[in-house]
Amino acid sequence: MSGAELAHRLPQQDRSRATRARLLDAAVDCLARLGWTGSTVAVVAERAGVTRGALQHHFPTREDLFTAAIEHVAAERMAFVRARLDELPEHGPARTEAVVSMIVRMYTDQYFRAALHLWVAAATEEPLRERVVALENRVGREAHRVAVASLGVDEYAAGVRETVQATLDMARGLGLANLLTDDSDRRTRIVARWSAILDAALAEQPG
Amino acid sequence: MSGAELAHRLPQQDRSRATRARLLDAAVDCLARLGWTGSTVAVVAERAGVTRGALQHHFPTREDLFTAAIEHVAAERMAFVRARLDELPEHGPARTEAVVSMIVRMYTDQYFRAALHLWVAAATEEPLRERVVALENRVGREAHRVAVASLGVDEYAAGVRETVQATLDMARGLGLANLLTDDSDRRTRIVARWSAILDAALAEQPG
Repeated sequence: MSGAELAHRLPQQDRSRATRARLLDAAVDCLARLGWTGSTVAVVAERAGVTRGALQHHFPTREDLFTAAIEHVAAERMAFVRARLDELPEHGPARTEAVVSMIVRMYTDQYFRAALHLWVAAATEEPLRERVVALENRVGREAHRVAVASLGVDEYAAGVRETVQATLDMARGLGLANLLTDDSDRRTRIVARWSAILDAALAEQPG
Repeated sequence: MSGAELAHRLPQQDRSRATRARLLDAAVDCLARLGWTGSTVAVVAERAGVTRGALQHHFPTREDLFTAAIEHVAAERMAFVRARLDELPEHGPARTEAVVSMIVRMYTDQYFRAALHLWVAAATEEPLRERVVALENRVGREAHRVAVASLGVDEYAAGVRETVQATLDMARGLGLANLLTDDSDRRTRIVARWSAILDAALAEQPG
């Protein structure tokens, strides 16, 4: 059944929700592949198979569309990670390495590529900047909470907050290093090494 | 004495060198402030106070101009760091922290901001992409060599290469985090914590 056929069988509210989801996916996909300059509202509408009017009904401005798209995918990724915490090794070095791998994966996929384009565009576009700063605060805080929960550490113990933050910053750096070339071999070695260091650093903590 | 007056007193070769240096500085400055889209050849020529023809005499294409500019500033920064290695504390935690601070500073200034714009633009512009990949390979290798030399470690000892690379990736992540807002307070705490962890991890190494 095609998307259009499916759409006709759904009640209005569900169709509206489906259109919104298609627009968000299309926006992230365009941003990751074409960058900010190439990702016009018209290009996203065409990719999602909706009219420009329908797009603007859901997202009045280009900034609304792209910040909503990045926030949506970020929330999905983190919910996915949270839902899988039970599947991780219970504790010790194996858990730490599984968590670091998972975090690094969040920062080296298509979503991060899209977020990076939005982030860098925001540096020189004022209406976008304010929106992205607010978005990054929310996403950054949630990433921190997910990392703390996954590692199973007490973030109020001395140094733990900074150690977790450093791990997220390293993951962002690895995401950047993966933008132009496939950096996965180097990354695998760094993730293994950093996991061992991190595990030892966190084990030292009292509490 | 103005730049123009100075230029007239210099022999042709020196004038040409001075023009080239002005163009490189203007290119990095434009890129950091205006991003890739805003940094046209015309904007850079105007900022440097030279004609478009003079610019094109030095740098036939836009790609030539910006990759040369980033490479030039990167080389300058690393030479600056190498020249100051003697001023660092001799060894131990104080040296490690001084080196980490120095590395992080390289990735959180105007130069890195400019490089980031070029890097992200290269992801969606094919003629630029190949040039930036080659450039980043050269700059990345030199950053690694400078970090190894500064830390005074044996990079052939097990895990050292990856530990140094993780530090550079974290520094890049901190650079990214500093793009839209002043991240210096958070960064100071992370640098202190990372330095302590890094120092312990490197001290463990045999040799």
